[in-house]
Amino acid sequence: MQLAKVLGDVVATHKDASLTGLKLLVIQPLNADGSSFGRALVAVDSAGAGVGETVFFVRGKEASFPFHPTEPPVDAGIVGIVDQVHVPDPLPGNR
Amino acid sequence: MQLAKVLGDVVATHKDASLTGLKLLVIQPLNADGSSFGRALVAVDSAGAGVGETVFFVRGKEASFPFHPTEPPVDAGIVGIVDQVHVPDPLPGNR
Amino acid sequence: MQLAKVLGDVVATHKDASLTGLKLLVIQPLNADGSSFGRALVAVDSAGAGVGETVFFVRGKEASFPFHPTEPPVDAGIVGIVDQVHVPDPLPGNR
Amino acid sequence: MQLAKVLGDVVATHKDASLTGLKLLVIQPLNADGSSFGRALVAVDSAGAGVGETVFFVRGKEASFPFHPTEPPVDAGIVGIVDQVHVPDPLPGNR
Amino acid sequence: MQLAKVLGDVVATHKDASLTGLKLLVIQPLNADGSSFGRALVAVDSAGAGVGETVFFVRGKEASFPFHPTEPPVDAGIVGIVDQVHVPDPLPGNR
Repeated sequence: MQLAKVLGDVVATHKDASLTGLKLLVIQPLNADGSSFGRALVAVDSAGAGVGETVFFVRGKEASFPFHPTEPPVDAGIVGIVDQVHVPDPLPGNR
Repeated sequence: MQLAKVLGDVVATHKDASLTGLKLLVIQPLNADGSSFGRALVAVDSAGAGVGETVFFVRGKEASFPFHPTEPPVDAGIVGIVDQVHVPDPLPGNR
Repeated sequence: MQLAKVLGDVVATHKDASLTGLKLLVIQPLNADGSSFGRALVAVDSAGAGVGETVFFVRGKEASFPFHPTEPPVDAGIVGIVDQVHVPDPLPGNR
Repeated sequence: MQLAKVLGDVVATHKDASLTGLKLLVIQPLNADGSSFGRALVAVDSAGAGVGETVFFVRGKEASFPFHPTEPPVDAGIVGIVDQVHVPDPLPGNR
Repeated sequence: MQLAKVLGDVVATHKDASLTGLKLLVIQPLNADGSSFGRALVAVDSAGAGVGETVFFVRGKEASFPFHPTEPPVDAGIVGIVDQVHVPDPLPGNR
């Protein structure tokens, strides 16, 4: 999973029927220190998240698990709202 | 999911039988602000999208869900046409 | 899915038993304009493709769908041979 | 799978119900020589790992296998604590 | 699938129970011309590979297929040992 900040939402009238009623949020991935990285993406929400909150999200088919037995065609889903991240001794990441 | 613009389509006579009748579109991934990024790819369409429209698409096996019980071998599928993206306070993404 | 060109093939005597008889091709991913990008990879073929042809391929478990009920351990598969790509108005991709 | 070092943990009160009781750790991917690379991420732990330990983790739906028959929506999971890595003759990796 | 060279192995006493008895190898991805790229990773072996050999490996849940009906939590697996790669006319890859 990765940390992310909720930036906004997406409105889509024409969509796959199994997406009806799902909240589609625009999220920005974050590093452990809260800095942003990578591209904003669209995720479904199963944690009750709102704009401005820090969350963690899952990628892949796993994003559809909270909606079983429905299998909406989603590949990113917010599964928790973060209260705190404890990282006593961060390593420098390089890419 | 990611935002994308529909650029065109692909014609393929010789293909896996389960792909027969599916619409194959060339799409360009977009950032939340509408700028393009990354590589164009080929996606199946289950939302009735056309060239020039902004859509959101799903990656992975999830792209085949709208065609159940058929399981076409696809890894990218357009699942919604975007009416509007609301992002009140975008963060700068870096890579 | 992504466009690709078939570059060659791989010969492997010792391999997982479920791969026996499958054609393993080396392919190079292509952009919508036919230029190459990224790394060459090894894909199974279920479309009858040959060296030099332009194809589209699928990544992930989906690559094994054409071989059901066998589930060979593959993560890339050629699923169609491209006749034509129509992209009336390409956007500049950036990475 | 990839090698990683455990950096810390994440506290989240509001989350998908199937995540209740799972340990969520912040981990930093490592190269075979122990140097760090890429972004820190959040992983569930099924190996009893603690902060400072070197582990290996799995990405994707596979991360949920240790919790069967529950299918928590996770895409990264620590599945082993590393005692030793033997690499007699490393190749230079380039990206 | 991708080509790779086997660099070494990983010893882990504390691990998910379904990994017991599986051989965990450190592998370095290779281009079609035999040059290395990207990061070394840890893969399970179902082809009987040894240090120094050139192999091809699969990513994702597919890596667990050779161990059915057991579903070990693995995301990379060596599925064949390469005898020869034939690439008559390589395209220049760019990234």
